[in-house]
Amino acid sequence: MKRARVACFGAVHDAVEVDGRLQLSDGRIVTEDEVVWLPPLVPRTIFALGLNYADHARELAFQAPAEPLVFLKGPNTLVGHRAQTRRPKDATHMHYECELAVVIGRSARKVKRDDAYAYVSGYTVANDYAIRDYLENYYRPNLRVKNRDTCTPIGPWLVDAADVADPMNLTLRTYVNGRLTQEGSTRDMIFSIPALIEYLSSFMTLNPGDIILTGTPEGLVDTAVGDEVVTEIEGIGRLVSTIVGDEAFAGEV
Amino acid sequence: MKRARVACFGAVHDAVEVDGRLQLSDGRIVTEDEVVWLPPLVPRTIFALGLNYADHARELAFQAPAEPLVFLKGPNTLVGHRAQTRRPKDATHMHYECELAVVIGRSARKVKRDDAYAYVSGYTVANDYAIRDYLENYYRPNLRVKNRDTCTPIGPWLVDAADVADPMNLTLRTYVNGRLTQEGSTRDMIFSIPALIEYLSSFMTLNPGDIILTGTPEGLVDTAVGDEVVTEIEGIGRLVSTIVGDEAFAGEV
Repeated sequence: MKRARVACFGAVHDAVEVDGRLQLSDGRIVTEDEVVWLPPLVPRTIFALGLNYADHARELAFQAPAEPLVFLKGPNTLVGHRAQTRRPKDATHMHYECELAVVIGRSARKVKRDDAYAYVSGYTVANDYAIRDYLENYYRPNLRVKNRDTCTPIGPWLVDAADVADPMNLTLRTYVNGRLTQEGSTRDMIFSIPALIEYLSSFMTLNPGDIILTGTPEGLVDTAVGDEVVTEIEGIGRLVSTIVGDEAFAGEV
Repeated sequence: MKRARVACFGAVHDAVEVDGRLQLSDGRIVTEDEVVWLPPLVPRTIFALGLNYADHARELAFQAPAEPLVFLKGPNTLVGHRAQTRRPKDATHMHYECELAVVIGRSARKVKRDDAYAYVSGYTVANDYAIRDYLENYYRPNLRVKNRDTCTPIGPWLVDAADVADPMNLTLRTYVNGRLTQEGSTRDMIFSIPALIEYLSSFMTLNPGDIILTGTPEGLVDTAVGDEVVTEIEGIGRLVSTIVGDEAFAGEV
């Protein structure tokens, strides 16, 4: 089952995919153009991985980390499918990052990797844009890089875990204005989904609604105002995002 | 007005302080021993500052940061007044950190520091425990240091901003088993409350319910299982936390 959260008819609805359209929980059927797509779940904690594909670490000229490099993101960053993402005028680079998002369905503590998939309720696609506007420094804070408003499109669908045969063998692709710019496979993660769940649950509790953004492979290019960026993961979904500037976004010049 | 959220009589209640007791929103009056204290608000994003007091940066032998060093914390970390906080057996050090917590009351974007206090709804006390169990590395991730379950007691009271004459001139004190171990003043912050609101709102939107933990002064000592840690801020509150080990916490040996 593919699930979504959408706004239409004056309310927010849970919906499922039926023959390429959306069936709302009250039975009504709508097309994907008739709704505002919201993030497919209201998340609790949003975890994100840095440098979880060795090729991408090389691309950024960093050594691959010896343990998962995990940071948190705030809810201000999330938008749904077909939304606008703002590129601030002081950004030096704004890279898309196509990522498989893993949604936790059961409380998980001290879970071994062999049991980890039992704690996953589903998967969706995220585009974890990175805005690089400053010099690195000793403390390596990434709030300004990774916590801008609207900079994490997610969706369109939350796909039930039971419907994903092998989440560690999915092709990820990004298209900018229709041109393929990034291609990789989840099989190239440094820390696999089970390894990440084992790691995080070894020192804290994962809770239903927590989301893990599992990192991105190589192939990042800078994006510009006006670009349409499509991040797509095989069997999970095709997430469309449009980049807008400060003026179009909020009238700021 | 001092506000709290407490559980009693089978429900969660908003309450206010009246003559040292709690008046629930339905009018009933209870004593502070009759309730389970919860965090005084359900937060949206939890921001926390590293090294925001120069004396504390010196104490840890770090240079003071040139811009605010801000990270996020997840909701799994929060507990209320009089709760247990777990010290995992693999912790090398577990430092308390008495911090003034600033609660945002209005959406804030591109706010100048002269206007910043208009966006603050109130203040509370936090104890942002740091668990240091590993060697520093190049990436400086702090998830394991700052995101353990129960490691951020907060409360008891959310004090209305209008009742705090000068939040930048409050004494902070920590007592471990009744002994004063930390004393400082909010006047010694490197980045003041208005500077932090200006900084964060310059590149993202702060929202009602966001909390900023403003950092801690010098005077950290390691805590042990069984310790009672009281973090107190003049005019804001006195927050009690008890440290327990893995076995007492969850039967884990």
